[in-house]
Amino acid sequence: MKAGDRQRGLLGLLSPVNFLDHTQHKGLAVAVFGVLLCKLWGLIVSPNPLPFTTDTHNKQNWVILGVFFYPALYYPLLACGTLHNKVGYVLGSLLSWTHFTVLVWQKIDCPRTTLIHKHFSLFSSLPQIVCLAFLSFQYPLLLFKGFKDTEQNKGSEVRFHHHGKKVKASFIQLFVISHQHCLTRFFFCPTAFCFPLKLAISAVVSFIALYQVGLLLISAVVPHLQKARLGVDENIANVLAGFKITLSPDRHEVVKIVVYYIWCVEVCYISAMVLSCLVNLLMLMRSMVLHRDNLKGLYRGDIYNVYNCQRNMRASRPALVCWMGYTGFTAAHICIGMLVQTMVFFLCLLVGVFLIIIPILYRQHLILFQMLWSMWPFWLMILLSVLLQHIVGRFCFVKKIAGTRDLDNRANLFLLTYLMFPVNVLIGVLLGVWRMIITAMFNIVHMGRMDISLLNRNVEPLDPAYRCYAHYLKIEVSQSHPVMKAFCGMLLQSVGQESGAVQRSRDAEEGIQLVQQEKKHKVSSAKRARRHWQLLYTLVNNPSLVGTRKHFQRQTREGFLNGSLHQRNQEASKKAAAAKEAEVAASK
Amino acid sequence: MKAGDRQRGLLGLLSPVNFLDHTQHKGLAVAVFGVLLCKLWGLIVSPNPLPFTTDTHNKQNWVILGVFFYPALYYPLLACGTLHNKVGYVLGSLLSWTHFTVLVWQKIDCPRTTLIHKHFSLFSSLPQIVCLAFLSFQYPLLLFKGFKDTEQNKGSEVRFHHHGKKVKASFIQLFVISHQHCLTRFFFCPTAFCFPLKLAISAVVSFIALYQVGLLLISAVVPHLQKARLGVDENIANVLAGFKITLSPDRHEVVKIVVYYIWCVEVCYISAMVLSCLVNLLMLMRSMVLHRDNLKGLYRGDIYNVYNCQRNMRASRPALVCWMGYTGFTAAHICIGMLVQTMVFFLCLLVGVFLIIIPILYRQHLILFQMLWSMWPFWLMILLSVLLQHIVGRFCFVKKIAGTRDLDNRANLFLLTYLMFPVNVLIGVLLGVWRMIITAMFNIVHMGRMDISLLNRNVEPLDPAYRCYAHYLKIEVSQSHPVMKAFCGMLLQSVGQESGAVQRSRDAEEGIQLVQQEKKHKVSSAKRARRHWQLLYTLVNNPSLVGTRKHFQRQTREGFLNGSLHQRNQEASKKAAAAKEAEVAASK
Repeated sequence: MKAGDRQRGLLGLLSPVNFLDHTQHKGLAVAVFGVLLCKLWGLIVSPNPLPFTTDTHNKQNWVILGVFFYPALYYPLLACGTLHNKVGYVLGSLLSWTHFTVLVWQKIDCPRTTLIHKHFSLFSSLPQIVCLAFLSFQYPLLLFKGFKDTEQNKGSEVRFHHHGKKVKASFIQLFVISHQHCLTRFFFCPTAFCFPLKLAISAVVSFIALYQVGLLLISAVVPHLQKARLGVDENIANVLAGFKITLSPDRHEVVKIVVYYIWCVEVCYISAMVLSCLVNLLMLMRSMVLHRDNLKGLYRGDIYNVYNCQRNMRASRPALVCWMGYTGFTAAHICIGMLVQTMVFFLCLLVGVFLIIIPILYRQHLILFQMLWSMWPFWLMILLSVLLQHIVGRFCFVKKIAGTRDLDNRANLFLLTYLMFPVNVLIGVLLGVWRMIITAMFNIVHMGRMDISLLNRNVEPLDPAYRCYAHYLKIEVSQSHPVMKAFCGMLLQSVGQESGAVQRSRDAEEGIQLVQQEKKHKVSSAKRARRHWQLLYTLVNNPSLVGTRKHFQRQTREGFLNGSLHQRNQEASKKAAAAKEAEVAASK
Repeated sequence: MKAGDRQRGLLGLLSPVNFLDHTQHKGLAVAVFGVLLCKLWGLIVSPNPLPFTTDTHNKQNWVILGVFFYPALYYPLLACGTLHNKVGYVLGSLLSWTHFTVLVWQKIDCPRTTLIHKHFSLFSSLPQIVCLAFLSFQYPLLLFKGFKDTEQNKGSEVRFHHHGKKVKASFIQLFVISHQHCLTRFFFCPTAFCFPLKLAISAVVSFIALYQVGLLLISAVVPHLQKARLGVDENIANVLAGFKITLSPDRHEVVKIVVYYIWCVEVCYISAMVLSCLVNLLMLMRSMVLHRDNLKGLYRGDIYNVYNCQRNMRASRPALVCWMGYTGFTAAHICIGMLVQTMVFFLCLLVGVFLIIIPILYRQHLILFQMLWSMWPFWLMILLSVLLQHIVGRFCFVKKIAGTRDLDNRANLFLLTYLMFPVNVLIGVLLGVWRMIITAMFNIVHMGRMDISLLNRNVEPLDPAYRCYAHYLKIEVSQSHPVMKAFCGMLLQSVGQESGAVQRSRDAEEGIQLVQQEKKHKVSSAKRARRHWQLLYTLVNNPSLVGTRKHFQRQTREGFLNGSLHQRNQEASKKAAAAKEAEVAASK
């Protein structure tokens, strides 16, 4: 067995592996993608993209090379984990230690660079160091676990041999005969929801992107502002006088005021950045929750609720392309979202600080307040009109009779509508401005999220990010249905027993192939059982079919949820009605 | 009868009237609202808001006064039309002629003003003149028709007497006994759809608002640009040299170039304005179509399709307030939408003209193209990556077996996903920018429309304009259901016959009140008929109940549409299956 393992290990490293499968170790893939994103960020930001060249003129070409070089460089780190044997783990440990040591040594050797800020490079590579440290720790751990597993193998084999047939029989009984019941139980009492690997990667990559953009925004602007603040001297008064601005007759006073204003700008900028970070973190969390709900809904067949239209949950070319790009797209959207948010929040905070807070604190330059105050008759009129309409609408024109509501006093309602028309035009202007603000803010806040469309519900697919997410979800659902996964696991176990080797840790696809090869001489029961088996066989071979089966699509969520409950309720109410009738008859 | 008419006329003018009812003459209300909007626009734009004062210091207070003064001034024009008798029409004719003559005389007396542009005031009052001319023509026409009607009354009375009972019986039969069938026929084969009066007013008011904003945008900017263009002389070269811009060594050449550039800006501005006008007109038309669909859907009970959630279609305080404000809000939204659109389109056109068209035409300053060209390896890489992913997604990873599609070759798919991750981040950045552009453009184009939400489907009610429209729709549907209107008309006719006077032209509410008073001694048939009548009575008294009835809410659109068809199909297929079975049996 050990010799075979070693051979698989050496060959396995050269052949492509299922490292994005749901049966794989999540941490390894997540860490490698994290390292890759950090490297890509370094490529774009640094003037010397690749370590083996200092040619800054052809930066673009070096970036293009780097974009393909780094995935190849870190590929072995990922592949070693998917072999599931000691050779892979040993190789993985060695590789991750090497990468980790090289990086740390590099940072210790020259912690300060001239790039953007002296500590930027160091902070920027922190996530990379964390990811590599995780890998350096995880591979030895897996190796150690592997040793333990081999020792415990015999015990588990015996245990499985005892319970095997019983478990298999009960599962098949559950799945085949009371198919619907099983589905209901499976979906509505899940002890834990397992996030798909691809989504875990997206989440971590998004988080790293957030960190990197935040770091860049801070280190590119704040040091310059600080330098400017410290460099303000009495010449500034002359410069301002050139623009005909006199903050104060005293030159010292002018310096103080300018320093104070620059400090305010700095605070606004940092606040905007932090706010944008927090908003994006919140959005990331909400995104995860929505994603779980969407997945659960689609597993149940609730296609309409998720997509707002009927869709075919099958693999297709655009769906596949979107699935491949999804992780990268999320990272890019988070970056763009954070840049835009920081800018917008910064402007809003500037306006707020310089037009509202500072004037209030110092009781001078109250321009905004003076403007608003001079318009008090207008505001009063608007307020009174709105109040009048609401009060009158509440008390004069709605008639309540026996639980129903209807219009009353229509002639007066029409008269009021007519008289209020010009005022309502003015209110409408305020409403329109408010609409603009709300719409812009909502879209800016949600810019980093791909899982909701920023457009109206009828044109949702026009939003390229949402379209991509919708396609991605299709593939995710058709490939990771929990019933399918559970069934594949069961099949693998049973196959493992009969061939004498427990291969629980193999991925599901291999299992399916095994079933294909070994099932022919196993099915030998009655006609009915054979038909059930054929159905299962088809389902296992075509996992996407699970979602397209008749009973799966037609049942709405309510029907699904309350199916048995509703029946019971109906029966109970029938019985109660019968009992009541009998009572009435008796009393007569 | 004539004396009674005259008395009603004099009293009627003092009491409020149902001028926004669906039985009223649409043109009159529309024209009066149009005049009112023009007056409001004049109030805001002109420095002397009211004709009887030239106090420009307290403009705000005069505007507030004007906002309530003008509706009162034009109220008689509207009220005269709702009396439906000769006195009203005569008074209306006199009033509208007076208003029209005064306005036209004013414009002829001083066609040029100093406001914004010498002809601005004249053009701005054109819609007002048109509306008043319409009124001046419509009132005499109605008076003339009134004379004709009185002469024809006897003939129509006889005709109605003959067919009355038959029509009534058949309608009640249709409505009560085959209720559902009647509804189906009523809704799905309508010969004409009658727009509600309130919506007609909104449409015309929106159109006038569009005209006024367009006029203001043109007359406030274009004359100044033209003046600037004509005023360019050789001094401009010195001014530009001050900013270190040298367009040409020759001074004449510089003047030519500057004049040409200003002309380009002018063309861009006018194009942007025209484009924005056209976009808003298109949106207005689409809005009408959507509104008709929404109304039809809600009449059918398709609440979920229209609102994307279940709602109660009853009158409520917020619904009433929104209904009152709707017309004014639409006008305001169109104005704001057009302002924002013109600005954005103007900027886009400027960028397009000065960075793309002029450089291409003169083969110089090709900055944008040079920038894009220097990045060709990057664009090539992006293009090739996208192509590669699409081609590979089409031919390598999707397996078609017997009509189903599934993933194939998963290991290679995962490998490609991993290798393409950094490229996909870069593609994602482009996608994000594209998303921003598309979202912003969509929202800016649809800013003037209240009937669609600019937000994501889950937070639609956060959009204040859409929320208002949704509420407005509730009242509109609950008050103007076509079955209710038809039934009220029928009742009015039958009542009219038995009391000896045909009062077809009375409004529906009066009819309902009549029915309430006179119905008690008419219902004297069997138990079953009485129950039907009670149901109808309830429905007539509570029009909003029609929408909340059980059969009305539960049936989905498909069930409604295909109900009978589906049954027939089922029967046909059953028959066919039986025939086939018989055939098979015979052949055996």
